Amino acid sequence: MQGWIREWAESTAGCLWSPLCSHFQSLHGLLKEMDNPVFTCYIFYSTLLVLKLYTLAIITGQLRLHKKAFVNPEDALRHGGLEYHRNDPDVERSRRAHRNARENIFPFLFLGAIYSLMEPNLFIAHVHFLVFFVARVVHSVAYLFAFRAPTRSLAYIIAQVPCVSIAVQILSHIAIGW
Amino acid sequence: MQGWIREWAESTAGCLWSPLCSHFQSLHGLLKEMDNPVFTCYIFYSTLLVLKLYTLAIITGQLRLHKKAFVNPEDALRHGGLEYHRNDPDVERSRRAHRNARENIFPFLFLGAIYSLMEPNLFIAHVHFLVFFVARVVHSVAYLFAFRAPTRSLAYIIAQVPCVSIAVQILSHIAIGW
Amino acid sequence: MQGWIREWAESTAGCLWSPLCSHFQSLHGLLKEMDNPVFTCYIFYSTLLVLKLYTLAIITGQLRLHKKAFVNPEDALRHGGLEYHRNDPDVERSRRAHRNARENIFPFLFLGAIYSLMEPNLFIAHVHFLVFFVARVVHSVAYLFAFRAPTRSLAYIIAQVPCVSIAVQILSHIAIGW
Repeated sequence: MQGWIREWAESTAGCLWSPLCSHFQSLHGLLKEMDNPVFTCYIFYSTLLVLKLYTLAIITGQLRLHKKAFVNPEDALRHGGLEYHRNDPDVERSRRAHRNARENIFPFLFLGAIYSLMEPNLFIAHVHFLVFFVARVVHSVAYLFAFRAPTRSLAYIIAQVPCVSIAVQILSHIAIGW
Repeated sequence: MQGWIREWAESTAGCLWSPLCSHFQSLHGLLKEMDNPVFTCYIFYSTLLVLKLYTLAIITGQLRLHKKAFVNPEDALRHGGLEYHRNDPDVERSRRAHRNARENIFPFLFLGAIYSLMEPNLFIAHVHFLVFFVARVVHSVAYLFAFRAPTRSLAYIIAQVPCVSIAVQILSHIAIGW
Repeated sequence: MQGWIREWAESTAGCLWSPLCSHFQSLHGLLKEMDNPVFTCYIFYSTLLVLKLYTLAIITGQLRLHKKAFVNPEDALRHGGLEYHRNDPDVERSRRAHRNARENIFPFLFLGAIYSLMEPNLFIAHVHFLVFFVARVVHSVAYLFAFRAPTRSLAYIIAQVPCVSIAVQILSHIAIGW
């Protein structure tokens, strides 16, 4: 990148945002001096789960191309004709796996962050995050490959246990304060 | 749990994450010394709303079992046969209620967190969160029990008011800084 | 609002939440003294994207009214009769645009927040956020107006680049620490 572009952008951005800088700031300095391995642990598993979401989206897209089953007529036209504007059971299965993953991973992103701020025991927190992570991976694999019931449902329930546990801990944390 | 497992896990985790500890930290120490009832208020209602999401997922699952309407052939096979691989209007209704809840609660988790950092008046913030919470609960109940229109739509619109209000406040906060 | 209501609410809320105040706090004081234009930048684009989500929901609702295609019988009854309890390709298209927006914007809300805490270069971070923002707006427009393929898919892929880049940066940040 040319120097002047960067310079211009930085000065623009600097003046654009600087007043709010007084309101929102880099927590970095603070973060440096303190110590929250639980938060790092949470970020690690959450980022992997977000990448898993992206992978499920890619799988759905590739299945659409491979099975020639497009949800939009304009895509079908580009890939052979309007007869490919159709449904396919494998594409639908992949979409359901993706949807179920979103339903469960997005609330975890919230719960895990709040939980990390509550200074839980590192080991217990790690177990919560790991159980959720492993169970969600098993759930996606079981969904995509149509494992015999109730594998998928079991993985679903196991993944919910740490989530509900975290939610209850947050609420008791608040209730104890009353 | 046996002592050595816990010990091993804590030492592993400690060394695994410790370098990042310098980057991400327990905000706990800081949190302790400061005072943000708005943030607590946000966490309280958000956690309840996440539990409401989980409840809607459970209702959908129980309806599937009760009405014998499974979206996956492997589930239908386990519960009586492939003829139960079918749709059911009540299951679909419950799924729509769940989806609508996700559409509106996930953005709130973001907006409410940022809003809490903006040091709003506690009473006004509390009203925002409470209106959103009550309207979303009414929305879910109105959806599940198919209340006469426009009850559900009204609850939807009322729940959007605090969300849009928060979004506008965030943007003006930034704009004022310019 | 009458003075006593406000007074009562503030005192109630104050005593309700105050113990947790010791755990969760206004980061405001800290934020004031520090400087994170990246976080402000993230909040700015994220809030606009959340408003875009709300706009897509409104478009879907208005299309339902305009095309008289309701997903719930109670809505159809209110707007002319049960024959309007039906699907419509334009409504479905708008719903898909909305769903795709949610699939991609919610993970960004997480990734962008963590990235902002990592003290990235402001210019590079701004480019990440801006590319995501512009590509997602293009994606929604291309979806709603059924632009010729592969416009929409290209916008989708371009929007994923900064997201995956951020995810990889977060993971390397953690890995480097090991």
